[in-house]
Amino acid sequence: MRHMTRDEALDFLIAEPRTAQVATVRADGRPHVSSVWIDLDGDTVVFNTWHTSVKAQNIRRDPRISLIVDDDRPPFSYVILEGVAELIETPNVDELRHWATRIARRYMGDAQAEAFGKRNGVPGELLVRLRPEKIIGHTAISD
Amino acid sequence: MRHMTRDEALDFLIAEPRTAQVATVRADGRPHVSSVWIDLDGDTVVFNTWHTSVKAQNIRRDPRISLIVDDDRPPFSYVILEGVAELIETPNVDELRHWATRIARRYMGDAQAEAFGKRNGVPGELLVRLRPEKIIGHTAISD
Repeated sequence: MRHMTRDEALDFLIAEPRTAQVATVRADGRPHVSSVWIDLDGDTVVFNTWHTSVKAQNIRRDPRISLIVDDDRPPFSYVILEGVAELIETPNVDELRHWATRIARRYMGDAQAEAFGKRNGVPGELLVRLRPEKIIGHTAISD
Repeated sequence: MRHMTRDEALDFLIAEPRTAQVATVRADGRPHVSSVWIDLDGDTVVFNTWHTSVKAQNIRRDPRISLIVDDDRPPFSYVILEGVAELIETPNVDELRHWATRIARRYMGDAQAEAFGKRNGVPGELLVRLRPEKIIGHTAISD
């Protein structure tokens, strides 16, 4: 097993179109986890969420989140980010569409990026930005 | 997007050697997320963790956890489990080795299962069992 540098960890996050799993905490203290599509804006992770999602409700109450991206094939790697998320409740329409399209392009390819950007760039969708305070990356875990 | 039945969701968990992401809550209320190898014992998810891991410490304090397995390729699917985990602090050595080997076989294949079972079946490793109270499964999300 080997530690990644901060730059290696950030690169790993978007090296492949892997989903990220975001952990938040519910009002009753239980953890919640769900998958999101992400992209990076410098060292800030950006993702969309619907304004009434469990994730959005939790972040609104307590913006401290943890996010993981992993490579689930041997020799296995993962990057975990921790920090305080910024929930953008009323994103500028152009900005929302820009990010929804850019994020979709990573997972659905060029041909479908615009269609999914339109689908995920509608009013009611929020932007979440996570500038990580802590980055943990490990690679070659099973070696 | 289509809802999975309970049986479809349980089947999905182990249909491929995908890792699971487990969310727990820290003493200060922040969420924690990490990846684990899993297997099923009937409808109960089983995984190993080291006794001093953040995950083990969190489950010891508050055993309510959430776990996700997703397929991160189009058309995308995921299963989320929620429930109260059972942390087995002093597992029987044979039981620990049995599960460590069985779990490793799913991710590392037959040839390396015994070696990884030995590596992950040592004193200090704990067993965690999650009998889900709630199972949410969605498939064909991008269709």
